[in-house]
Amino acid sequence: MSTLLVSPPSPYSSKVCMAAAYAGYACDVKFVDTSKPNAELSAANPLGKIPVLLTENDGAVFDSVVIIHYLNRATGGKLLPKNAAKLLEAQRMEAIADGINDCAVAYQYEKRLRPEAFIYQGWLDKQWGKVTQALDVLEANPPKLPLRIHAGHIALAATLGYLSLRFPGWEKGRPKLKRYAKKFTDKHEALAALLPRLP
Amino acid sequence: MSTLLVSPPSPYSSKVCMAAAYAGYACDVKFVDTSKPNAELSAANPLGKIPVLLTENDGAVFDSVVIIHYLNRATGGKLLPKNAAKLLEAQRMEAIADGINDCAVAYQYEKRLRPEAFIYQGWLDKQWGKVTQALDVLEANPPKLPLRIHAGHIALAATLGYLSLRFPGWEKGRPKLKRYAKKFTDKHEALAALLPRLP
Repeated sequence: MSTLLVSPPSPYSSKVCMAAAYAGYACDVKFVDTSKPNAELSAANPLGKIPVLLTENDGAVFDSVVIIHYLNRATGGKLLPKNAAKLLEAQRMEAIADGINDCAVAYQYEKRLRPEAFIYQGWLDKQWGKVTQALDVLEANPPKLPLRIHAGHIALAATLGYLSLRFPGWEKGRPKLKRYAKKFTDKHEALAALLPRLP
Repeated sequence: MSTLLVSPPSPYSSKVCMAAAYAGYACDVKFVDTSKPNAELSAANPLGKIPVLLTENDGAVFDSVVIIHYLNRATGGKLLPKNAAKLLEAQRMEAIADGINDCAVAYQYEKRLRPEAFIYQGWLDKQWGKVTQALDVLEANPPKLPLRIHAGHIALAATLGYLSLRFPGWEKGRPKLKRYAKKFTDKHEALAALLPRLP
């Protein structure tokens, strides 16, 4: 069986764990502490980043977007629409969610991975500005949550879960996105257990 | 006709420009100065990041990986192999190249986008360590450059071009990757003109 190397708070990890569960792709899940050197992770991904899917026959699969495509192929297309326009919509949604993650994670790294004297407010402001702008665009035109969801829906849920974990209060003035997160949790209880969380 | 919003030094921009040229996808190219607020870019991508492909019928396409998939579909599969194993290889190669970019760009941002007193050597070392580790893995098992190339080959060429622009000397002790870059430039002159360069 395949093994997913992940970290519980990571939105990218949450996305692929939820995607595997939603698509019915059975795999073991192994938590990795990315704050320490990890030989298994480095051997699988020279960049030393989670998530990585260790497959039995296809080697190590990364990054999270490539894992989504792999899981989609392995499950006969359960995660990405076949129709080109809908596929693009799903991919764009995943890209916005992952892009918000990139900025929110960069903010967290600035706060956590350096001595206080080196924390630069200008950088924090820049990252948070991008998060805010992207959330506002999504709030103005919030995605629907249909019966059959795709990787974009899952990615957005993971992102909002990450924001709830690390940036409580993000939902202020964003009732539609808050409703999206609530609806996702209500409709997909098993997936909601895989949202970003403390280790 | 579509328009690509790009920045000449960006490895992600170079990748998609070369991919469009290789696949024969005709589009205008527009340079964006990402150091200043840009209304057109923000309207297209709420994250304010290049590259973005502004299409006539399908809206704004981003990020660079999504653009590659879009170009691939638009050109009947000229950028990504159809065979699942080869597709995974191409996607993994693109992910390693983009992952090196992420770290190399983070290094550059640390050096350029904050006052000197806030530059944290520990962060620079961490990013460069990841670049080094990934380059060493590629050097130990360098990709071939076949007659028909895919997005992974193009992504790696863009990454090595970016390193040559911003980190001259990267090729020391890495003769195989240096040869890959040279061979790419020799074989694909028109693409080589689109490698990362100063604005």
